[in-house]
Amino acid sequence: MRASGGEWLDSIRRRAARPRPGWTRRPARALTGCAALLALGWPVGPAHAAAPGLSDSQRKEAEFIYFDRCSGCHGALRKGATGPNITDEQMLKKALPELEKTIYEGTDAGMPGWGRTGEMTRDETALMAKFLQNPVPIPPELGLEAMRASHKVHVPIAERPRKPEHKRDIDDLFGFILRDVGKGAIIDGKSKELAGIVDTGFAVHIFRASATGRYFYTIGRDGKVSLIDLYEKKPQVVAEVRVCLDARSVDVSKYKGPKGDFVDKLAIVGCYWPPQMVVLDGQTLEPMKVISTRSSTYDTNEYHPEPRVATIVASHADSEWVVAIKETGMVWLVDYSDLDNLKMTQIAAERFLHDGGWDATQRYLLIAANMRDQMVVVDTEEKKFITKFETGIKPHPGRGANWIDPEFGPVSATTHLGEGLIVVYGSDPKGHPEHAWQIVREAETAGPGLFLKTHPKSNHIWTDATLSKEEGANQQICVFRKEDFEAGPNCWQATEHGKIVHFEYNKAGNEVWTSVWDKQGEIIVYDDKTLKEKQRITGDWLVTPTGKWNVYNTVHDIY
Amino acid sequence: MRASGGEWLDSIRRRAARPRPGWTRRPARALTGCAALLALGWPVGPAHAAAPGLSDSQRKEAEFIYFDRCSGCHGALRKGATGPNITDEQMLKKALPELEKTIYEGTDAGMPGWGRTGEMTRDETALMAKFLQNPVPIPPELGLEAMRASHKVHVPIAERPRKPEHKRDIDDLFGFILRDVGKGAIIDGKSKELAGIVDTGFAVHIFRASATGRYFYTIGRDGKVSLIDLYEKKPQVVAEVRVCLDARSVDVSKYKGPKGDFVDKLAIVGCYWPPQMVVLDGQTLEPMKVISTRSSTYDTNEYHPEPRVATIVASHADSEWVVAIKETGMVWLVDYSDLDNLKMTQIAAERFLHDGGWDATQRYLLIAANMRDQMVVVDTEEKKFITKFETGIKPHPGRGANWIDPEFGPVSATTHLGEGLIVVYGSDPKGHPEHAWQIVREAETAGPGLFLKTHPKSNHIWTDATLSKEEGANQQICVFRKEDFEAGPNCWQATEHGKIVHFEYNKAGNEVWTSVWDKQGEIIVYDDKTLKEKQRITGDWLVTPTGKWNVYNTVHDIY
Repeated sequence: MRASGGEWLDSIRRRAARPRPGWTRRPARALTGCAALLALGWPVGPAHAAAPGLSDSQRKEAEFIYFDRCSGCHGALRKGATGPNITDEQMLKKALPELEKTIYEGTDAGMPGWGRTGEMTRDETALMAKFLQNPVPIPPELGLEAMRASHKVHVPIAERPRKPEHKRDIDDLFGFILRDVGKGAIIDGKSKELAGIVDTGFAVHIFRASATGRYFYTIGRDGKVSLIDLYEKKPQVVAEVRVCLDARSVDVSKYKGPKGDFVDKLAIVGCYWPPQMVVLDGQTLEPMKVISTRSSTYDTNEYHPEPRVATIVASHADSEWVVAIKETGMVWLVDYSDLDNLKMTQIAAERFLHDGGWDATQRYLLIAANMRDQMVVVDTEEKKFITKFETGIKPHPGRGANWIDPEFGPVSATTHLGEGLIVVYGSDPKGHPEHAWQIVREAETAGPGLFLKTHPKSNHIWTDATLSKEEGANQQICVFRKEDFEAGPNCWQATEHGKIVHFEYNKAGNEVWTSVWDKQGEIIVYDDKTLKEKQRITGDWLVTPTGKWNVYNTVHDIY
Repeated sequence: MRASGGEWLDSIRRRAARPRPGWTRRPARALTGCAALLALGWPVGPAHAAAPGLSDSQRKEAEFIYFDRCSGCHGALRKGATGPNITDEQMLKKALPELEKTIYEGTDAGMPGWGRTGEMTRDETALMAKFLQNPVPIPPELGLEAMRASHKVHVPIAERPRKPEHKRDIDDLFGFILRDVGKGAIIDGKSKELAGIVDTGFAVHIFRASATGRYFYTIGRDGKVSLIDLYEKKPQVVAEVRVCLDARSVDVSKYKGPKGDFVDKLAIVGCYWPPQMVVLDGQTLEPMKVISTRSSTYDTNEYHPEPRVATIVASHADSEWVVAIKETGMVWLVDYSDLDNLKMTQIAAERFLHDGGWDATQRYLLIAANMRDQMVVVDTEEKKFITKFETGIKPHPGRGANWIDPEFGPVSATTHLGEGLIVVYGSDPKGHPEHAWQIVREAETAGPGLFLKTHPKSNHIWTDATLSKEEGANQQICVFRKEDFEAGPNCWQATEHGKIVHFEYNKAGNEVWTSVWDKQGEIIVYDDKTLKEKQRITGDWLVTPTGKWNVYNTVHDIY
């Protein structure tokens, strides 16, 4: 019988009470935090006669691995998104050895070789091949009551400090993901000191600063939201709640105007599973409203059972969250000013939406439809689709990068998951309509990467090559100059171990911070002007540092 | 393997080509048109060990009957709505003889006794009891491509007449449902002549006149929409399409104003299954957009897999359809002015929404949440929930009735499915705020009924007692006087056979038309002033007449 949401949460609490796997285990296990919480032996339909048998424990093991390694691209229901459809119906068309090989070796189409990278053993790839020929287990739903059961306010609002209990500049704090230990590090942007480490969900995807900058919200891949109060003497989780079984996005309400003062009043979480978004009280994380994303694809108008929430950004100009729905290719503008009479605009865009952010004026959302190799432009003022255009193989802008090009005026840019390419396009339809949403420049980077970053006060655009399979390329940083983009990047090897991933400026816009993503990771701080290394932050606590966010830049969406 | 939408439609076409059951068969069979089209042996999960076995042909037979008799109240997924949850999990808690008895005899809670009324045999109630202890078959989805395959334009727009090809007053035509033969009759309101009979979907639920009054749209329970052109010499179906497997509602776009001229440009169908609404070209019925209703309940915010579209009404003042979503208890205002950048307001109301209509100003939607014994008021101008209040056992206003009460000013009213009761409430928050949405009068009718009706030019309110189980009560009509409501109704027996159901005024507002719902039915036309019978319309063609709509009154929402 299917576990109800309540039973599921009880089960989570029981499991969470068990000792967590530490670094003595292989990464593949250390990463299974959320999967371990999720794997309950979900109900499955009858297997095809040709499906290989699996024991209960094998099935659970495979469910662990699937959620860790596969569901991000292929979806919980295996119907495909960034990766192809891998339901049993499809997988039974292939022979087991062929499937095993694909899982072990990967493909040129972007499938990682999980065996080759050491993240799965031969036994595990063999197990996964069999698992994929079996029917898809259906994960449970999660409603308000079950969410409320997981809701904890560790420090009630009345007991929180009225002003900062420390001398640090809150605006210049950084939040760092310590991905594989389910923790976050708060680091002082001025002194580079560790201000504190907090427990978060597992494999946190992002930090978002609240509109005032007082709080950080983190969202774990396991759907756990943590509210971190930066006023406390040591940064502290003051509330938490689990609202999804799988999640990637969180944001806060930023609007203040005729419709009301919503600054830090509400938060929103975007779930992968169940396919829904959840509105929370911004100060206590109490779940308030569930908005299902189950709906039809923008083009063929077919029902999709698993439209996942990719990215959420909060409007500065209106009481709206901009929510990208991956599988259906829709951008939903969700007006949070009246949750009981909820207004939405559902904008047909392109499949499959991934991440994106604002142009410099914060009017246009620029978002990747990465399986269509396109960038999509949505006008949040007129609340409509503007255009989409091809850039390269799987554009991945993160939140993006905006600057003034000497020739083309205001431009924006993206890197690519599928090739070492930065593509620059005009993003000033008013001042430079002839270049708006047209590609104006492109250049090679060190290899397929995840992020690029700049700052209005900087002359530089920083790019990583995290996904490169070439020896050493993923340890490189390449920096372009706005003044002379065509001269090509200045590249260097920044680390001898791990991979370079993600950049963030300090508040002043004169330093760039990046991560050496490794079991024992590092943070490197560069002088943005000279590109010289200023400092390396190390420590036992620096386990798998990945994304990082400066409070000021995140509050104001400076990128 | 599950049938795809395309395969399903092929199957429909094959089945539709077979001779249709005529009146030589029992009603239970004659009604199975849509179920016959639907029953494809949908995929089911593994049965509980205790579930009684069913052969494939028994399962199909039971699926037929279930869709005909049970799904309206219990839902395709059997999770309950107007009736309780009857999934196998619940039904296995009961013994088979107990279940059989309930199905055969009915209950006081409103469950019809299908054996008692002669609509199921002992064998059939025994079969249904077993069927309910087996897992729920999941009906297929239906996307745009599959819908398009069923789309037929019999008369292209260019070939349609430019003006009426007959001398009848189009505004005074009536559309009559001939429920059990899948046909519609168009009758001349002046001469009382039969203008023509057209093929429609099975068990049509409603006719809606287009905004200009030129067309009638009908929606069959089988999800088939028919566009009937009243300009043709004989009324003719000029286009048809099947967009649901089970449906109840259809409407047209009526708005003309700053956002554009949408008069008759678009139509919308509300489906029961798949849970969705579908926007069509208003002139050709070409399917354009599918909007899923799968979403969370308004109160507990739990995901519901089958939120059915109950009622749709078209706003006269804005480019919006007002769509009631039954299971989630939400009213969605769907703005059709830009389908690619679709604006919606989702208003939390009450479960389970059924039917309703406008107040006299056409600003407020008054709709029944009939399992909560409440009427709900939604303000479509401010786009928000106003209030809800208890009236009686299962209010059922149809579209409702609006008049001026000598003491309380503008009022509206509902009858009830669960008791012979008419309840009157103030509906003029501006002029009579002290009575607005307050019950001001109530009175007994002949018994539990379906409809009430009045007209601005009339002094009368007409009520039926169609659902009464008392001998003869469902053959009565009771009429109240607006001037002296408290004097009680004038009631009389209007027929010796069948049941009286549903009223409609002619265009002038001086005649009331009602149906004798029987295999060989009749139409009775009354003089509204004297309550005297003016004419009885009979004929071989008058098979199971039920609902009827006058073009003028439907265009202008006069009730």
